[in-house]
Amino acid sequence: MEGVTRKPYRMEGLPERVTVYEVGPRDGLQNESAVIPVEVKAEFVARLAAAGHRVIEATSFVHPKWVPQLADAAELLTSMERVPGVRYPVLVPNERGLDRALEHGVTEIAIFGSATETFAAKNLNRSLDSQFEMFAPVVARALEHGLKVRAYVSMCFGDPWEGPTPVAQVVEVGRRLLDLGCYELSLGDTIGVGTPGHVTALIEAFGGPDRLAVHFHDTYGQALANTLAALRAGVTVVDASTGGIGGCPYAESATGNLATEDLVWMLHGLGVETGLNLDALVETSAWLAARLGRPSPSRVVQALS
Amino acid sequence: MEGVTRKPYRMEGLPERVTVYEVGPRDGLQNESAVIPVEVKAEFVARLAAAGHRVIEATSFVHPKWVPQLADAAELLTSMERVPGVRYPVLVPNERGLDRALEHGVTEIAIFGSATETFAAKNLNRSLDSQFEMFAPVVARALEHGLKVRAYVSMCFGDPWEGPTPVAQVVEVGRRLLDLGCYELSLGDTIGVGTPGHVTALIEAFGGPDRLAVHFHDTYGQALANTLAALRAGVTVVDASTGGIGGCPYAESATGNLATEDLVWMLHGLGVETGLNLDALVETSAWLAARLGRPSPSRVVQALS
Repeated sequence: MEGVTRKPYRMEGLPERVTVYEVGPRDGLQNESAVIPVEVKAEFVARLAAAGHRVIEATSFVHPKWVPQLADAAELLTSMERVPGVRYPVLVPNERGLDRALEHGVTEIAIFGSATETFAAKNLNRSLDSQFEMFAPVVARALEHGLKVRAYVSMCFGDPWEGPTPVAQVVEVGRRLLDLGCYELSLGDTIGVGTPGHVTALIEAFGGPDRLAVHFHDTYGQALANTLAALRAGVTVVDASTGGIGGCPYAESATGNLATEDLVWMLHGLGVETGLNLDALVETSAWLAARLGRPSPSRVVQALS
Repeated sequence: MEGVTRKPYRMEGLPERVTVYEVGPRDGLQNESAVIPVEVKAEFVARLAAAGHRVIEATSFVHPKWVPQLADAAELLTSMERVPGVRYPVLVPNERGLDRALEHGVTEIAIFGSATETFAAKNLNRSLDSQFEMFAPVVARALEHGLKVRAYVSMCFGDPWEGPTPVAQVVEVGRRLLDLGCYELSLGDTIGVGTPGHVTALIEAFGGPDRLAVHFHDTYGQALANTLAALRAGVTVVDASTGGIGGCPYAESATGNLATEDLVWMLHGLGVETGLNLDALVETSAWLAARLGRPSPSRVVQALS
């Protein structure tokens, strides 16, 4: 489909190659209401690798009380196929989560910090300042075991309680997480309110794109335009979710994360290499949508499947 | 809503102000399957003006056999309120359409050309080259009557039969339409396949943004990223449709034109003036969605209503 109808047009100042960090199995499925059997999740992860993904965030060791959708994390990690050359990071919230990740042969983890006081209280049960005390031993022990650690910063553009998040506050939180020893910081627009100038300002405030990834939600339709701004600022790692899953499960067409397919359509149109096979991604999204019982919110998936 | 949660972040090289050319009543409704009474259309147009729109493409004098949804064009123009300072262009396909527009006091028209041979044949029943013979007397007579004439060029990025449209071909078609005396050219990505580098390349091939507007469909989720590229290239007129209406009416969440609300969310976030009240736009889209019997495909409308 792609090859027949399109010809790439490069744009000045964009990277040659972008790594799509696939969060569908974790950030996507944790926000879907459908109960997905572990065999289906294992097939989902296998299909993503077969479509060319080289980083797939597989699941999370968050307590099942909080995220029942991912209560089968241990089972999934035991049963799923691991393709050589593919990384399968797992989210861990705390030391107990790290213990379980280590028990299951995980070699990369991600931690999930907050850029705002209110979300730190609600999501981490911590103050903005004391979240680092919780993360420090997790990261230190993970590094001792030779794991790579990625840090998410959530609510980087605004949160529902405090309004816009001050850029300087995001930079401070981000730097403190990097200083713990994280190899990469994923700047998250958890509620999708950001716009491209805000993205550029935030990356500039960090002094450039070094060690930065971006994680946009498409709640207000801004995710792809924001991604373009991030690419122009030099970012080369972009989080996305198969078919855009992860939106509010109660609204049929609500979208969550930036859809991988919409991102890949843009990147390939721009002549940016991803190593991904768009047709296989669309097929996987259509397959998954049938299991979730709702249409994919991805425009590309809607158009091509 | 807007004021509480957001703070604008400007981006280098963007215009201070953008004119949103609203096509919902024409390009939106002509592609919706629901039958909308003329009173509802008149109220729709009135609501758009009240929300701050200063250009509203009201309807079309295309033959009702081809576009039955707009068969009430004359009735609408007779009954609808005209707010001083607001422009209400009407699409006319040919001289007969122009006659009817003149009979009904229209002061601005738009013509609809094709950038590709196949679409010219299918939509205009003309060759690419002979479309200008059809448009020439329409534009000449419209100018004699003191009307402003806008030209659409459709399929500027690709069409379903020929694949990617050569940039030079779009420029030639566009220049010939401008040379007839049109004041503005709206470059349409009718099937939504374009990506930002293609947009930049096309605008550069025209020698810059002078007299250019852009008209993106969101079929592949690219419309807003493409708009950002156009703004960076200096374009200051952007077509959009209330709530993103105008997609294939058979797919519940399919989208057509770029949604006005998603565009305005971005523009206001970038500190670009539009004169529009986003809350009133969202309210209008929610009101219209109830009359169309399907949810708005706009992400902003879904998030805020």
